[in-house]
Amino acid sequence: MSHADLSLVDAYWRAANYLSAGQIYLMDNPLLTEPLAPEHIKPRLLGHWGTTPGLNFLYAHLNRVIRERDLDMMFVTGPGHGGPALLANTWLEGTYSETYPGVPRDAEGMRTLFRQFSFPGGVPSHVAPEVPGSIHEGGELGYSLAHAFGAAFDNPGLVVACVVGDGEAETGPLAASWHANKFLNPETDGAVLPILHLNGYKIANPSLLSRIPRDELDSLFRGYGYQPFHVEGHEPEAMHARMAEVLDEVLDLIARGGRPMIVLRSPKGWTGPSEVDGLPVEDTWRSHQVPLAGVRDNPGHLAMLESWLRGYRPEELFDADGVPRPELAALVPEGTRRMGASPHANGGLVLRELKMPSIREHAVEVVKHGSTQSEPTRVLGRFLRDVVTLNEKERDFRVFGPDETASNRLDAVYEVTGKQWQAETLPVDEHLVPDGRVVEVLSEHLCQGMLEGYLLTGRHGLFNCYEAFIHIVDSMFNQHAKWLKTHRKLEWRRPVASLNYLLSSHVWRQDHNGFSHQDPGFIDHVMNKKAEVVRVYLPPDTNTLLSVADHCLRSKDYVNVIVAGKNETPDWLSAEEAELHCARGAGIWEWASNDEDEPDVVLACAGDAPTVEVLAATTLLREHLPSLRVRVVNVVDLMRLQPDTEHPHGMPDREFDALFTTDKPVIFAYHGYPWLIHRLTYRRTNHHNLHVRGYKEEGTTTTPFDMLVLNDLDRYRLVIDVIDRVPGLGPKAARLRQLMQDQRTRHHAWIREHGEDLPEVRDWTWQ
Amino acid sequence: MSHADLSLVDAYWRAANYLSAGQIYLMDNPLLTEPLAPEHIKPRLLGHWGTTPGLNFLYAHLNRVIRERDLDMMFVTGPGHGGPALLANTWLEGTYSETYPGVPRDAEGMRTLFRQFSFPGGVPSHVAPEVPGSIHEGGELGYSLAHAFGAAFDNPGLVVACVVGDGEAETGPLAASWHANKFLNPETDGAVLPILHLNGYKIANPSLLSRIPRDELDSLFRGYGYQPFHVEGHEPEAMHARMAEVLDEVLDLIARGGRPMIVLRSPKGWTGPSEVDGLPVEDTWRSHQVPLAGVRDNPGHLAMLESWLRGYRPEELFDADGVPRPELAALVPEGTRRMGASPHANGGLVLRELKMPSIREHAVEVVKHGSTQSEPTRVLGRFLRDVVTLNEKERDFRVFGPDETASNRLDAVYEVTGKQWQAETLPVDEHLVPDGRVVEVLSEHLCQGMLEGYLLTGRHGLFNCYEAFIHIVDSMFNQHAKWLKTHRKLEWRRPVASLNYLLSSHVWRQDHNGFSHQDPGFIDHVMNKKAEVVRVYLPPDTNTLLSVADHCLRSKDYVNVIVAGKNETPDWLSAEEAELHCARGAGIWEWASNDEDEPDVVLACAGDAPTVEVLAATTLLREHLPSLRVRVVNVVDLMRLQPDTEHPHGMPDREFDALFTTDKPVIFAYHGYPWLIHRLTYRRTNHHNLHVRGYKEEGTTTTPFDMLVLNDLDRYRLVIDVIDRVPGLGPKAARLRQLMQDQRTRHHAWIREHGEDLPEVRDWTWQ
Repeated sequence: MSHADLSLVDAYWRAANYLSAGQIYLMDNPLLTEPLAPEHIKPRLLGHWGTTPGLNFLYAHLNRVIRERDLDMMFVTGPGHGGPALLANTWLEGTYSETYPGVPRDAEGMRTLFRQFSFPGGVPSHVAPEVPGSIHEGGELGYSLAHAFGAAFDNPGLVVACVVGDGEAETGPLAASWHANKFLNPETDGAVLPILHLNGYKIANPSLLSRIPRDELDSLFRGYGYQPFHVEGHEPEAMHARMAEVLDEVLDLIARGGRPMIVLRSPKGWTGPSEVDGLPVEDTWRSHQVPLAGVRDNPGHLAMLESWLRGYRPEELFDADGVPRPELAALVPEGTRRMGASPHANGGLVLRELKMPSIREHAVEVVKHGSTQSEPTRVLGRFLRDVVTLNEKERDFRVFGPDETASNRLDAVYEVTGKQWQAETLPVDEHLVPDGRVVEVLSEHLCQGMLEGYLLTGRHGLFNCYEAFIHIVDSMFNQHAKWLKTHRKLEWRRPVASLNYLLSSHVWRQDHNGFSHQDPGFIDHVMNKKAEVVRVYLPPDTNTLLSVADHCLRSKDYVNVIVAGKNETPDWLSAEEAELHCARGAGIWEWASNDEDEPDVVLACAGDAPTVEVLAATTLLREHLPSLRVRVVNVVDLMRLQPDTEHPHGMPDREFDALFTTDKPVIFAYHGYPWLIHRLTYRRTNHHNLHVRGYKEEGTTTTPFDMLVLNDLDRYRLVIDVIDRVPGLGPKAARLRQLMQDQRTRHHAWIREHGEDLPEVRDWTWQ
Repeated sequence: MSHADLSLVDAYWRAANYLSAGQIYLMDNPLLTEPLAPEHIKPRLLGHWGTTPGLNFLYAHLNRVIRERDLDMMFVTGPGHGGPALLANTWLEGTYSETYPGVPRDAEGMRTLFRQFSFPGGVPSHVAPEVPGSIHEGGELGYSLAHAFGAAFDNPGLVVACVVGDGEAETGPLAASWHANKFLNPETDGAVLPILHLNGYKIANPSLLSRIPRDELDSLFRGYGYQPFHVEGHEPEAMHARMAEVLDEVLDLIARGGRPMIVLRSPKGWTGPSEVDGLPVEDTWRSHQVPLAGVRDNPGHLAMLESWLRGYRPEELFDADGVPRPELAALVPEGTRRMGASPHANGGLVLRELKMPSIREHAVEVVKHGSTQSEPTRVLGRFLRDVVTLNEKERDFRVFGPDETASNRLDAVYEVTGKQWQAETLPVDEHLVPDGRVVEVLSEHLCQGMLEGYLLTGRHGLFNCYEAFIHIVDSMFNQHAKWLKTHRKLEWRRPVASLNYLLSSHVWRQDHNGFSHQDPGFIDHVMNKKAEVVRVYLPPDTNTLLSVADHCLRSKDYVNVIVAGKNETPDWLSAEEAELHCARGAGIWEWASNDEDEPDVVLACAGDAPTVEVLAATTLLREHLPSLRVRVVNVVDLMRLQPDTEHPHGMPDREFDALFTTDKPVIFAYHGYPWLIHRLTYRRTNHHNLHVRGYKEEGTTTTPFDMLVLNDLDRYRLVIDVIDRVPGLGPKAARLRQLMQDQRTRHHAWIREHGEDLPEVRDWTWQ
């Protein structure tokens, strides 16, 4: 590379560094046209300098290769604290001002750029949805590489440069993500270029990977399946030359299907103050945030800041109006080749509507309510198989799962596609193919991270998971929901496909596993996030599952949680009824009720297992207390329970009262933790009459019916609840109550002797 | 090793395999004294055969070296599905029958052992708290190695053999855990011997690590800092010889301070049916669970099962009474050297009471309520420093944190100890020592996992973490809480120290960070677990934090969550008052109230920031509406809000009513998501008058007071809430309401201009 080229990269780097430091410190005087004074300094100095110069260095060098090779490239910023770097670079390349015309590329724009950073009403200090070109929030650490792999899937020709911070590299999710190269297919997918930014320190400690011998580090990445390249030093000229050389080499390798990665070992806070108040700062953890903290009150610090900033020679980089000098423009890629303008990074721009099969074709036939049984997720598997087929050409739909897609009975998809796999194979293997639509890896983090990257780059997908273990990604869900909340407010960010969870092998059917596999609390977790973002569905049978899944796969900008069983369940509703019921979200099942609009009691249910128990309870009540008027209400869309002031799907009080009455006892059998139903309904008129049964952390390896009994959610208990709450039922009811208790005792003895449920439970069908 | 020795190991292995398969299949006829018939077979075949023979192989070989070298060894079973293996081995070595006299070492005991497995009322199919010698639940995968390292800390001489499944090895937490060897000190800690059990398959897929080239695998473990040893094959005799040789070598290495690990590559379902119905089973994923599924109805399968079981030659292994033959006993270690009898694995046996410093010595002086300010966690840091000092000799207290101990202002501990660190150091480093009491690694998973391992082996500790990111370990918390629930019911398991979380840098003070760092939902998550296990504390100031921390560190068998700020906060209570207030858990602050037992309104608060706002609101009310009688209630122990029927700390209604009245408006300013307070109180008489303010997912990088305003938790909003809810306040109140709204508007304009809070907020002190 010529000296002139390197000077240009260096000038660009200095410009980005200047703009980064300016954001952290300056309220005014952005071009240093006058001597720096305390009133130019922000009152609260907030931001992270440490990682920033390294990010700027990489961005400048990547710009060079994008131009030279006309690359389609995205930038994923693992060290998200380096917000100033990405803001600086997108401003320099023009994408920031195009996105935000209020921040033009001139002196006034630079002043705004500086002032808004970490300032009330301004922009966050992390890389965030507000930053053009980003699909990755920098806050919680660990997910950059998974996002990068997700973005690369089905984007042949795309190169995703992913900077991994050496702090982030200590996290579990990141440590597992390196192995994602065992899925990516160089023919049909893009490439990921991981760049480990080894700047040595976290907030207060050295990073582990910077303190192991070089050959160990090398060995680690070879073990992960990469060819590592090292760029190491602090002297800018030599570093520029080495980085340029390495980038050319790794991009050649990528073009040949290789798997390189780069280790950039540069000082933390590079080019910042080397020493402050007698303590080393550059190349130590002390430059993690704001290296000069006392600038406003300490004239010595103020002078150091001024000399630091002037050291970048801003007058050579910007003209008197603050416009970047034309020489710099020679490094900026054209149009959408600019990383801040990548359409991949604003996925809604390239999102295509999914072609959907007809629900009716897949629905199970229901001549009579509950007269047949099906495995809901197995039927859904056939529906998903057809989604795969219909969108095969576009290759923009994927199913992710932690080794559970077949266990969750979605294996019909393997009739038309396979599991993507680039590692070794053996003859005994089934469905492993180089370019399948299914990705399975025993890491919920990796599944979630790859799916997020896939969705945010404008594609569609589904994450199927055992219900209990979805908590592994609670925090990733948090971050994605927060991303979506902000994304929805930014008009320039176009809607993306929703993140769809299918939670199966749920709490009520963990026959193989037991207590450690029983946790329906993800729903509770999800409900803490913004109402406009989250949706929770509990389809009670096969056709309602199809209808819900169809709806979710078509939706945008939501997180949809679907909880559905894989075991045989009565088919309650025909396709037509299911569609209507799901559209309403909750409703009276008249065919199961005998209340003639005037119930004595409401039996409500949400979830497949509770629905069976409620229906079974009504048959017992009808048989033994035929004059008792029972209304059955089923809830598919949990958000319907909330007031309409709280959630867009919420029911007005009038509607709620029409379903649940204003004064009759309501026994509510719920799939998850019972208090959630109270939380959703405490404002309703009839709330004081609401009695909820659900999972209360009682469980072990036992029979399905015993799980219900252990948690007081079984049909016998529900009948007892009715008897205890409806006044004046008389001696017949008292006898029924005793009978129900006897049944529970009998069940207890029976399963301990036979190891399976009572025949009348196993063979029960709705009449 | 002699041929006789190897034959003994093989016999032991066969015995364990026989007992394992028996558990999965047999209801009766445990010794196969009669031909196997369908009625001997369990009706529901549940369990995991795949990993079991490998575990049995390891257990047998480890027994040999324990005996030969008189080792103090623990066994951590990563592939937890291999429950049958650990049950078989502890029964064989006698610890099972000692723990459960109802399951003696004879034919009847064997029958019970078989029958109870995965049977209603019996034992779970995973390694679980019920299994003697275990500290690790096998269900959710990923934490075995972290548990092993936690167990090894401060246990010099102990060797923790940790089997890592190759499925588990794909998870993030496990991938990160290998690096824990950068902390363990061979002088002052025990050793961890990781054994990667590469049996090739998960439920339905090959495992990644079994399908990469051998040199890549080798490279990976060298990169992680281990010396890998391979034991590979399927032919028992050769495998026994090789395993014996490798074990001797690695134990020699460990004795010299080395870091070996073993890769055991053996067939999945080893020694089970090699082919069933024409499909290969042994050495494929098809042996993951039950290799012969149709045994009860399919005579062919039944015959295969019988020949499989008889292939172990049970008559050579057990006498006619089912007692293991005396030859086998020659392999069993003595007494507590048996891994099932390790006192480390029943930590309560070796738990010592922590010596605690006096709270009074550390308390800040409070002459007048709120007249001074302190940083609560900084003062707690000094208290913890003294905990370290007082227990220095015993070395059984540790602080874990993801690089945030100093950021959370606990750095006083570094006056007396350091951060344990075995990797390279540089002169610029601070507080890195080979044997410190603090462990920092940027992985919440690793912090939690190591602490769990440390606690379950009878020691004490604290995990300090940013509040938002504790969600990363939601699922680990779930599993630990489930463990504790079961552990508490097992009388032979002695109480262990509680798992203590200190969540700081909380939602209201994330000035550097913003929206991605704002999430107070861990409390909600915790509350779904069993009431007898979980406790949540929100100390409002420094002295209450000390009192709460003191209480938690002394407690047993709980999970305690403490949320406390690090920023300057008014000192509300003296040490004496703080102790009393914390003992009560909630109470009226009379000195801040002017209600004379007859309030017009109750202002309640939980959490440090809400408490400041409530107190500030009362001063505004007193100034502007002096005749309004305001009661201030502060809640430290959140569980007090629940009815006493729901939680051991719950308040009876009478007490609740005395605090919150039965008919007056209650404005409740809460630290977290507001609906949690409703969930806890919906049964209370006065619930319909309760109006809760809290975090509602509004936030960004802004000033502390703006965060409160964005979420309607600020003092001005609280005053407006009071005015809107207390009837008949007249025109003066209307004017105050307008004034409050004007203040909010002024605040908005002010921070956008000045970048910091209004002076009257910044300088506010309680009068």
